[in-house]
Amino acid sequence: MADHLNLVPFVSVHHMMQLVLEIGVERFMDELTAYLEEDFRRWEKFDKTPRVASHSREGVIELMPTSDGRHYGFKYVNGHPKNTREGRQTVTAFGVFADVGNGYPLLISEMTILTALRTAATSALAAKYLAPRGADCMALIGNGAQAEFQAMAFKALLGIRKLRLYDIDRGATEKCRRNLAGLGFEMTACASGEDAVEGAQIITTATADKQYATILTDNMVGAGVHINAVGGDCPGKTELHRDILLRSDIFVEYPPQTRIEGEIQQLDKDHPVEELWRLVAGKAIGRCEARQITLFDSVGFATEDFSALRYVRDKIEQTGLYTELDLLADPDEPRDLFGMLLRFPGSSLLAQREKGLIL
Amino acid sequence: MADHLNLVPFVSVHHMMQLVLEIGVERFMDELTAYLEEDFRRWEKFDKTPRVASHSREGVIELMPTSDGRHYGFKYVNGHPKNTREGRQTVTAFGVFADVGNGYPLLISEMTILTALRTAATSALAAKYLAPRGADCMALIGNGAQAEFQAMAFKALLGIRKLRLYDIDRGATEKCRRNLAGLGFEMTACASGEDAVEGAQIITTATADKQYATILTDNMVGAGVHINAVGGDCPGKTELHRDILLRSDIFVEYPPQTRIEGEIQQLDKDHPVEELWRLVAGKAIGRCEARQITLFDSVGFATEDFSALRYVRDKIEQTGLYTELDLLADPDEPRDLFGMLLRFPGSSLLAQREKGLIL
Repeated sequence: MADHLNLVPFVSVHHMMQLVLEIGVERFMDELTAYLEEDFRRWEKFDKTPRVASHSREGVIELMPTSDGRHYGFKYVNGHPKNTREGRQTVTAFGVFADVGNGYPLLISEMTILTALRTAATSALAAKYLAPRGADCMALIGNGAQAEFQAMAFKALLGIRKLRLYDIDRGATEKCRRNLAGLGFEMTACASGEDAVEGAQIITTATADKQYATILTDNMVGAGVHINAVGGDCPGKTELHRDILLRSDIFVEYPPQTRIEGEIQQLDKDHPVEELWRLVAGKAIGRCEARQITLFDSVGFATEDFSALRYVRDKIEQTGLYTELDLLADPDEPRDLFGMLLRFPGSSLLAQREKGLIL
Repeated sequence: MADHLNLVPFVSVHHMMQLVLEIGVERFMDELTAYLEEDFRRWEKFDKTPRVASHSREGVIELMPTSDGRHYGFKYVNGHPKNTREGRQTVTAFGVFADVGNGYPLLISEMTILTALRTAATSALAAKYLAPRGADCMALIGNGAQAEFQAMAFKALLGIRKLRLYDIDRGATEKCRRNLAGLGFEMTACASGEDAVEGAQIITTATADKQYATILTDNMVGAGVHINAVGGDCPGKTELHRDILLRSDIFVEYPPQTRIEGEIQQLDKDHPVEELWRLVAGKAIGRCEARQITLFDSVGFATEDFSALRYVRDKIEQTGLYTELDLLADPDEPRDLFGMLLRFPGSSLLAQREKGLIL
């Protein structure tokens, strides 16, 4: 055992794809949601801090740490809207899961794909408590990188089969349709947002523009609808007209963060919101009447990344889909870090010393 | 180029040891100090935040981020005193260096060894400005993991040849002596701290106990000495008697952090201290008279890790001592993350779709 203290399991992008496909996207969403649910239920056990952001003209780099007292996790994530022009991702991420007892990392994992999965799973989890019973049709406005993951999560957890797709870029809608073809959906490409919400019991907005936008106007939201607002997730970026918020019962992940980053940045600081964890823990009631408009104002929170890392950590032990990184110095005697260097095969220090001894 | 956007250079413990030995410990210290100096000189360009700590009964896990506007770096570091009982390191660390312009990581590196090197290099850098001219003898109290690195840095940068070693654990002193044998030092194993400081112009304390300790009492510190206090580096952990502080001119890295973590946690919040960067930038004067007692109250700061990562990043391009991690999802079309999954060789989604098409 002591021989391997230096090694940390690493899940590459390649292994993450293999893992997702081996488990199956829908089962992955199901199981991941169970981990999310378990962690939301013990929300009060978590150390919660707003993300640590480093802003620049071009974008932001953030660290999102949290701990439940037994494990510690953090995600590194960037957001650079101009990246797509250079063929790069707007958002990439990786994460680390560690043992609080000794501080040693237990897992390093890609999290670009994993974040897409956990974001969609969290949306579907909220919708389980908030969407109208028997919902089978979802409007999906914004058909970028997150769109198909939302569709798959809502299929797996709520049985959504009908999708009404809209994006200002028809190419995005076409891509989304192509990717989801043959996966059990009945899809309609719509000519406008107004067209997309027609007959949908759930409206998901997942657009990418970094600005105050009005993807949904007040007239587009009828009684009884559940809105899953995914795209508005940083200061200065919203998707919904303020009037919609005033008519909705609003559910959020972590109020101090959502008030800065979410749709509710448009509202007064003390506007009442309910917390998702309280729904999951049975401390608050979700949808209670048919005409109610519910809104999940999603921005993504560190505990969700923690849950996702915890799930992946459990899964790779079964599947072996990882490699090991020689990340942690592990001298024979803990205080002998320099000695480890000295005894490294071919160490010039040894040579230097021998010369010293000879002279 | 676009083919490799997913890959991030990774410097393992093995590669770090090779790198250090290929460059040579003393040249590494010299060159690293030049990077530290360059970054301290442009201190005002850096985003500075206190480290983000997650405390538990057993220890602490910290993230130390910083940015100069062009690059971003952070270190993950733990501190778990009880770890040595299980054959683990008290402190292990790794770090990431990234491009602020697009948020993509440029380097992931082990930092247990690198931190030991940068801590020693920072001490030697401070001593360049503070130690008495012609100093050739250093007391080294605390002969644990950091001791030999301090010795090598002070040899490389100040020409220190005489070491007076002391540790409450004689085994530690013996280890230190064995490791440094033949590397150009004249070493004396001392029976006490009082014995060790005898005739030393520089006193380095690098003990590990997590408590208020008194490694140096007031009577042990004579006029004209430079104290390099490395061990007191977290709340509740100090090494010097308060009276010594009151007689010293105190130099620190980043006051808001040192007032919480350093020796000066024993002093009033407004006790005057000078900043290391101001010495380096020529905005403050170091030692100005022979009888002055100077104290570098070292706790370690994020910009030093940044400098170390920046140095390693520059070095590995020349040496090739790294591997590449498949860390960042890189779909052909940035918005098509799901499509990347779909087109993964042997994707069960494709199989599912084909079945769908056939039925």
